[in-house]
Formats: sequence, C-alpha cells, structure tokens
Amino acid sequence: MAISARNGIKGTVESVKLGEVMASIKIKVEDPALITAAITAESAEELELAVGDEVKAIIKSTEIMVAK
Amino acid sequence: MAISARNGIKGTVESVKLGEVMASIKIKVEDPALITAAITAESAEELELAVGDEVKAIIKSTEIMVAK
Amino acid sequence: MAISARNGIKGTVESVKLGEVMASIKIKVEDPALITAAITAESAEELELAVGDEVKAIIKSTEIMVAK
Amino acid sequence: MAISARNGIKGTVESVKLGEVMASIKIKVEDPALITAAITAESAEELELAVGDEVKAIIKSTEIMVAK
Amino acid sequence: MAISARNGIKGTVESVKLGEVMASIKIKVEDPALITAAITAESAEELELAVGDEVKAIIKSTEIMVAK
Amino acid sequence: MAISARNGIKGTVESVKLGEVMASIKIKVEDPALITAAITAESAEELELAVGDEVKAIIKSTEIMVAK
Repeated sequence: MAISARNGIKGTVESVKLGEVMASIKIKVEDPALITAAITAESAEELELAVGDEVKAIIKSTEIMVAK
Repeated sequence: MAISARNGIKGTVESVKLGEVMASIKIKVEDPALITAAITAESAEELELAVGDEVKAIIKSTEIMVAK
Repeated sequence: MAISARNGIKGTVESVKLGEVMASIKIKVEDPALITAAITAESAEELELAVGDEVKAIIKSTEIMVAK
Repeated sequence: MAISARNGIKGTVESVKLGEVMASIKIKVEDPALITAAITAESAEELELAVGDEVKAIIKSTEIMVAK
Repeated sequence: MAISARNGIKGTVESVKLGEVMASIKIKVEDPALITAAITAESAEELELAVGDEVKAIIKSTEIMVAK
Repeated sequence: MAISARNGIKGTVESVKLGEVMASIKIKVEDPALITAAITAESAEELELAVGDEVKAIIKSTEIMVAK
C-alpha cells in the first residue's frame, strides 16, 4: 500500500517517552541529528517502538514550511 | 527569534513550481534525496525562493508520523 | 510497514481534480457520503488515482477536532 | 455558523482519556469501528465530552492523506 | 454546535483568490493586520466568501507554534 | 531568517502548563483574549517560556479554517 505523503525520512529510534496521551519519539537521522515526532502514546505502544528500531518519519507536504 | 518547531532540515532548493494559490518547493537534502513542501504561492514569492537557495524545511513535531 | 496514524477510512475514489500544485480527491465512504482530501497533484499522479480505486483516507489523530 | 472544514463524520463517544495537557477521544462510527482524536484536555472538559455523546469528528481536507 | 478547536479570531474578509483546487482568503483582523487561510476552493465557494463578510479564523491548538 | 508561515500574532505569555510530553501555552493577544498553543513540553522548556514573555503565535496558512 502506497501513501500520498510525499516525505519519508529513514532513521533509528533513539528514545521513546510515553506520556498519558501523547508520546515523544526521537529518531536519529543523518541530518539533522534528531527528528522529534509527537504521536499518541497508544500508537507508540501498538507499533512497539523501541530504541534501535529502524523507522521512517512520514510527513505530508502541506505540513512543511520553508525558512530562508 | 527562536521557534518552537522541533525540526529543521537544511537543504538546497531544487525546484519551485508556482500554482495560482499554492506552490510546491523541492528541497534537496542528504536523506531522503528530496523533500516536498506545499506552501502558498504568495509565500514562495515573498521569500523569493529560487533554485540553489539554501533553506531549511521546518516541521512541527505534532505533524510527524512514524512508520515501522 | 505500519504507520502511527490512528485513522484509516476505507472508500472508493469518486473524483480526482488536478490543479497545478494541489489536487482534490473525493472518496466515497459509508458515512459521511464523501470525504475530501487535498493532496499534492504530483502525489495523485504517482498513485495514479482514478475513479473507482479502492483507497484509504489516512488521518493523524492530532488533526481531528470534535464538535458536539 | 458554517465552517470551511470539508469533512464531518458523525459518531458516538466511546471513551475519553484525559492527560495533563492532551486528551484522547475515541469516537464510534460506522466504518472504521473507531476514530481517535487527540485534542487538548481543556477542550474535552469544556465540551463536557462523555461516553455516549453524539459528536462529529471534523477534519480539514489538507490534513487527509490517501493510501492505495 | 461547539467545536474543540480552541482558537477563533474574528475578522472581515479582505480578499478571496480562487485557484483550481485551493483558495487563499485574506481576513482583516486587529492584530496582525491580515491572516491568510488556505482552504479548498470548493469550500470558499460553498461558504460564498466575499469581501466584507464577517468571519472567524478557526485554528486547532496543535497547529500553533510559539516564537520568542 | 524568514519563514514561509504567513501568520504571526504578537502577544504575551499568560500561562505555561507542562505535561509529560505536551505543553499548553496561553498567549494573551488583543482579539481574541487568549490563544492556546499545544507544543511539546521540551520545546516550551528550551524556549524557557514564562508568564510575561513577549512571543509570537506562528501559524501556517493551510492550518487555518474559515467559519462564517
């Protein structure tokens, strides 16, 4: 199954911090050093995200801003 | 001025496609090869985005999904 | 590959309208009658979205509001 | 008052989980079985969201991806 | 009907620019001078947005960044 | 450095509530009285957001809906 989101950045999970409702996932990529994704804690648990997992950060194009 | 958006990815503008209301900006980064940002055409014009510009793709953490 | 987005709604493509940069995709689901997704035209073309395609509308939980 | 968000999906609140800042609301709809909305806890409290409430999940078109 | 989106800013429509798929709406508010909303052209047409209309810009809290 | 986000609203921080993963920031502006931003707690801490700080609420145009 292919998804319309244009952007997928490969990386490795460096930390998983679960809050009650939300979770913060740090993903180590080449540049920048770290990407932070804020997803639901439930989702982090169902994906069984753990340090060292190879994952992709997925981002819809309309969510990306450009700074110059 | 610092912004709360956690994620900034450095890259170089590879193409700028202006539509009537929206614009698609391709930014060459290390990995993946290309990031696509969909911003308003007005914004692309005011930033005078052009091929070769050094820019940053800025993304709020709550907009990033994780695929595994 | 599993994605952290919590919500996937199955449906059938009812129309594809391509603009220069953005595309509007109407997806027929059970309730409501139609979902409208605004994605990049490039993405609609790469997925070769056509009327009658069986697709899923994917939505991150942080993008859903509740009205009562 | 009408809102520009294209998509409203009727359903019934199945659970309300309040965190300190964010809340997760499960809404039972026809298909899929459940939609998860991550909204502020404050907002869930002000709407007095409770199991059994008839609500609408509201989604802006630019937040919807298509998977095929 | 009340919506969970925390933020509503009253203003007056100053311009409506329709593209093929997306529309740009300028809303005059007290501060800043102008807010720009990028919504679907279809939505702008169904709301019959016209210069001088009194409207509200509605924004979900998770979409707001803070710069300092 | 300029950012493509079209909308910046000046205000003063009225409260900072830190959860485990997310934080809620109330910003006093002229109209409406208060804007609520839901950002990561980490980001709120790194910006050292405190009551009385002069800040800007930054919003990408594609995240703004219009109600009439």
